[in-house]
Amino acid sequence: MDKEQDKKAYAHAEKAYMHGTMFPYIKVGMQKVNLTPTVNIVNGEKVATPNAPVYIYDTSGPFSDPDIEIDLKKGLPRMRESWITGRGDVEQLPSITSEYGKMRRDDKSLNHLRFEHIALPYRAKAGKAITQMAYAKAGIVTPEMEYVAIRENMNCKELGIETHITPEFVRDEIAAGRAVLPANINHPESEPMIIGRNFLVKINTNIGNSATTSSIDEEVEKAVWSCKWGGDTLMDLSTGANIHETREWIIRNCPVPVGTVPIYQALEKVNGKVEDLSWEIYKDTLIEQCEQGVDYFTIHAGIRRQNVHLADKRLCGIVSRGGSIMSKWCLMHDKESFLYEHFNDICDILAQYDVAISLGDGLRPGCIQDANDEAQFAELDTMGELVLRAWDKNVQAFIEGPGHVPLHKIKENMERQISHCHNAPFYTLGPLVTDIAPGYDHITSAIGAAQIGWLGTAMLCYVTPKEHLGLPNKEDVRVGVITYKIAAHAADLAKGHPGAQIRDNALSKARYEFRWRDQFHLSLDPDRALEYFNEGRHTDGEYCTMCGPNFCAMKLSRDLKNVEGKE
Amino acid sequence: MDKEQDKKAYAHAEKAYMHGTMFPYIKVGMQKVNLTPTVNIVNGEKVATPNAPVYIYDTSGPFSDPDIEIDLKKGLPRMRESWITGRGDVEQLPSITSEYGKMRRDDKSLNHLRFEHIALPYRAKAGKAITQMAYAKAGIVTPEMEYVAIRENMNCKELGIETHITPEFVRDEIAAGRAVLPANINHPESEPMIIGRNFLVKINTNIGNSATTSSIDEEVEKAVWSCKWGGDTLMDLSTGANIHETREWIIRNCPVPVGTVPIYQALEKVNGKVEDLSWEIYKDTLIEQCEQGVDYFTIHAGIRRQNVHLADKRLCGIVSRGGSIMSKWCLMHDKESFLYEHFNDICDILAQYDVAISLGDGLRPGCIQDANDEAQFAELDTMGELVLRAWDKNVQAFIEGPGHVPLHKIKENMERQISHCHNAPFYTLGPLVTDIAPGYDHITSAIGAAQIGWLGTAMLCYVTPKEHLGLPNKEDVRVGVITYKIAAHAADLAKGHPGAQIRDNALSKARYEFRWRDQFHLSLDPDRALEYFNEGRHTDGEYCTMCGPNFCAMKLSRDLKNVEGKE
Repeated sequence: MDKEQDKKAYAHAEKAYMHGTMFPYIKVGMQKVNLTPTVNIVNGEKVATPNAPVYIYDTSGPFSDPDIEIDLKKGLPRMRESWITGRGDVEQLPSITSEYGKMRRDDKSLNHLRFEHIALPYRAKAGKAITQMAYAKAGIVTPEMEYVAIRENMNCKELGIETHITPEFVRDEIAAGRAVLPANINHPESEPMIIGRNFLVKINTNIGNSATTSSIDEEVEKAVWSCKWGGDTLMDLSTGANIHETREWIIRNCPVPVGTVPIYQALEKVNGKVEDLSWEIYKDTLIEQCEQGVDYFTIHAGIRRQNVHLADKRLCGIVSRGGSIMSKWCLMHDKESFLYEHFNDICDILAQYDVAISLGDGLRPGCIQDANDEAQFAELDTMGELVLRAWDKNVQAFIEGPGHVPLHKIKENMERQISHCHNAPFYTLGPLVTDIAPGYDHITSAIGAAQIGWLGTAMLCYVTPKEHLGLPNKEDVRVGVITYKIAAHAADLAKGHPGAQIRDNALSKARYEFRWRDQFHLSLDPDRALEYFNEGRHTDGEYCTMCGPNFCAMKLSRDLKNVEGKE
Repeated sequence: MDKEQDKKAYAHAEKAYMHGTMFPYIKVGMQKVNLTPTVNIVNGEKVATPNAPVYIYDTSGPFSDPDIEIDLKKGLPRMRESWITGRGDVEQLPSITSEYGKMRRDDKSLNHLRFEHIALPYRAKAGKAITQMAYAKAGIVTPEMEYVAIRENMNCKELGIETHITPEFVRDEIAAGRAVLPANINHPESEPMIIGRNFLVKINTNIGNSATTSSIDEEVEKAVWSCKWGGDTLMDLSTGANIHETREWIIRNCPVPVGTVPIYQALEKVNGKVEDLSWEIYKDTLIEQCEQGVDYFTIHAGIRRQNVHLADKRLCGIVSRGGSIMSKWCLMHDKESFLYEHFNDICDILAQYDVAISLGDGLRPGCIQDANDEAQFAELDTMGELVLRAWDKNVQAFIEGPGHVPLHKIKENMERQISHCHNAPFYTLGPLVTDIAPGYDHITSAIGAAQIGWLGTAMLCYVTPKEHLGLPNKEDVRVGVITYKIAAHAADLAKGHPGAQIRDNALSKARYEFRWRDQFHLSLDPDRALEYFNEGRHTDGEYCTMCGPNFCAMKLSRDLKNVEGKE
C-alpha cells in the first residue's frame, strides 16, 4: 500500500476519540475537522470569529490514527476482545472445529499464503445466549451499544442538540429486532455499528476476486480502501481459489463488520456442481466462517421449491447468484431447499458466535420489467416467516431487497417489507431506477437508494460504475462508496437524523465565506474537490474563475450587506 | 473537432426519419438501433428470432446524419425557415435593429471572429401574433406541433402502443400554458421540442466561457458535444469578451433551442457596474439576442425590492448570479427592479420573435438550510403573477426552480409551483439533496432531479462534476448530460410516459441473452459501457469474468429452463 498517499488522504482531519460514560474505557474514533475562523471587516478592521470543529462519522478505524502502527501481517488491535471475554459467557476453543478449516490449516503448501497470527476461536458456553439481541432482550446495555450511541450522535453533545439515541434506545431497538448490531465474537477488531431505520443509513461495499482476477494483497488493499472512504460494512464475495486464506487476511485487518455469502464457498467445495451441494457441506462452511469472524451471512433461505417457477415469466429470470444456485438445486433434486429446511439449525450455529443473518433476496428483480412481481413478493413473505424464527433463537436478522425498481414502485417495496418482515431492517442493492445506463449504474442506483433510504431502508449496498460490466478497481470502489455516502446522507437529512445537517451547514457557510480549504475538508471526498478546484487555475480571493469577479453571486450577495449598511 | 471520433460515436445506430401526416414534409430524426436476433437451441438446432429495432429520441440533429455535410462556417440547414415564412405573418427586416448589434457589425476589427453567413432577422408583421402559443390558442396545429408529437412517441407507432400525444394534444397543452415549444423564428436550424409535464422530461445543458477561459471554437464544440449526448436545450452563459460573436456561431450550429441570461451581457456593456444597468441597455440586449435567434431568455423579474431583505437571514444569501445582480441594483437605486417594472414591454418584444421566457429564480436556495424559505416562496408567488401577464401577450413562459433542497422538501416545491404558477412548466437546477459532496454534485443533484421530475418538473438543468469548483471540460459535459438523461428517464418511467420502458426492456433482454453489443448500443453511453467491458478482459460466451462460469446468475437462470424441460 502507498503509505504516503494514505497519510495525505487523512490530512484534512485529525483523529479524535469520544469516551463512554457507562463504559469509560470506550473510545469512539471520529474525524475531527478543524475550521478556520470567519473574518469580517468591522470599522475597517479584520475581526475573526471562530468556527466550531465538525466531527465526522469515521469508518476507517486505526488506519487513520497516526499513533497506531499498522502491520497488516499482525492485524488490527483486538479492541472488543476484553469486552467479550469480560462477560464470562464465551469460551476459547482448543482448536477450530470445521473440517474444511482444519484441512486448510494442515495444508503446508498454503503456508506462504497464510495470515500468521491466527487466534483460536471463541464460542458461547453451553446454554449461554451471547448475541447482542439476547442481551438486549434481557435488558442489558453492552459496551457495543453505548459505542454506537456515541457514534451515531456525532456533534450533538458538543452543540447541545437533542437526540433520542441513547444506549438504552439502542438496546430497545435491537431487542425489538428493528436494528442489528453485527458483532461476531471472533471479529474483535471490528468497531461496533448499527443497522436500523432509526439510525444513520449505512452503506455496504463489496469486494472479492473471481476465478482469475485479483490477489490477496489486492483484496486487503480494497477492503482498507473502502473503509477509508466510508464503507460501513464490507462483503467479501470472493469466489476464486484460496478464499479461506483471503478472508482471514481481510477480517484481521477490517475495522468494520464483514459479511459473506457462504453458498459461494460451498459451491467451490463441490467444484461448481450445484447438484452436489448439501446441508453437511454448507454447515461446515458456516462453522468455518463463524470461527474466522464473519459478522453476517447472506443466506438465501427464502427460495422455496414451490416459488421457483414464478420467475419463469420474467424478462430477466433470476439475477441473484445465490438465488439461481438454490433454485437450480431445488429443481434438480425436486426438493425443498436445504437452507429453508435447516433454518433452525443454521440459527443454532450462528447464535453461538453472534453472527447475524442477512436473508438474501434470491428472487430480486433484475430489470425494471420484473420489479414488484409475484416471485419477488412470494420470497419476501417467506423471509418474514424466517425472521421470526431467527429472533426466537436470538439471532439478529435483516432482509435484503432489490435490485431494479422504477421510482414509483419503490414505496410499495418498503411498506411491504416493513409489514411482512415485522420491522426487521431492510438492506437493498440500489435499487436501480432504470436499466439503460450501464457504466453509470452507481448513479441509476443511487437515485433509488436515496429514495428507499429516506423511506426506511437501513443499509444500502453500493454499486460501482462497473456494475454489469466488470469487476471494480480501486477508483471504482472510491466512486461507488462516495456515491452511496451521498445517497445515505440525503436519506439521513430527509429523515431528520439528529445533527445530520451540521456538516452541510458548516460546508455551506465555508463556501459562502470563500473558505475554500474548509469547504474541501468538510466534503465527502476532499481530494477530488481539491483536484477539480486546482484544475480551474483559480485566482485567490473572493471569487474564482468559474464566474469571474463581476459575476460571482456569492460575492455580490455578500456585498449586498454593505449596500444595505449604507442605507 | 475530431471527425473520426464523432463518426465512431454514432456508429452504434443509424439515422432514421419519421414523416409527418398533417405535414408530410416533416422529417423527424431518430437514432435507430438495429438488434441482432435471439438465438435459442431447439431440438439441437439454432433457431434465430429477430428483435425489433429500437428508436431513440435524438437531439444531435444533422450531426449524426452521414448524408448531411457539416460545415460549421455555414451553419446547419435552416429546416424551419419555409414553415415560418409560409405562415405569411413575419417579415424579414432590412437590417438588424439593436444598437449594439449594429455596432458589432460595423466593427471591422471583429471580422476574423465573425460568422460569415449571417441572415437578416425575421420579425412579426405589425399586429400579427406569431408565437406557438398564439397559434395554439387560435386552434391551429403548426408543423412544429406535429413534429414534437412524432418525436415524443418514438416507438409507439411501430409497436402499436397507445399514446395520448397527438398534434392536437400538443396544441392544447401549449394553449393552456402547460407546455412550451421554444422556437424563435430566427433560429430555423432548431428542431422543435416541447417542455411540459405531460411530455418526456427534458434536460438543459449550460456552456459558456468566463472572463479568461475558452475560445469560440471550444464553445461551439461543447455545444455540438452536448447535443450529441442528449441535451434537449442549451444555455449559453458566456460572460467574457465577444459574447455576441460567440453566440452567433453557437446558434447557427445548434439543432436544439438556445437559452441565455441577457442580464449577463447587459452587465458586460456597463463594464460590470451593477448600478449603471438600465432598462434601455437591457432592452437593446433583448432585441439584439431576439434577432440572433435565442429561443428563450432567463429573466429574473421575480425579484422585487420589497423581498430582497428576505434573503438576509440565510446561511448562503443569494446564489443566483442574475438574482444577486438585480438585488444589488434594487438596493443601490432603492427602486423596484426594471425587469419587473417593464415586464409588459419585455413581453411585447419577445412576442414579435416567439422567444419564450424562463422566469429566473434569483432567490433560489443555495444550501440545504435555506431551502423552501420565505425568500424563495415570495419570489415564486411573483412569478405566478408574471406568467399570467406573459400569457396575456401570447408569450410562452416557464418557471425556474431550485437549487438545494433536501428530499423531504422537494414535493412542497413542486406542488406550490403548480398551484401558484398556474401549471406553467417547471425547470429546476437539480435540486441537490445535500451540500457535502463537491466534486460529485452531478450525483447529489440527479437524486433530486429524478424525484422532482417524477413529481412533474418538465425540464432539468444539468449539473456537472465541476459544479461549485470550476468550469466543465468536455468530459464533464458528457458525464453531466448522461447523469441527467438518467434522472429524466427515471422520471419518465415513473410517470408512465408512453413507450418509455421499451428501451429498458430491450436492453435487459439483450443482457439476459448475452447479446453484449446490443446491450451497449441501447445504452445511454455506448462508448463508456464498451470501454468498461473491455477493461475486464472478458471471455466470450455466456458469462464474463465478473463472476466466472460457475457463478453467473443469468447463465444459471437460463439453465434452469433446461432443468425444468427435463422434468
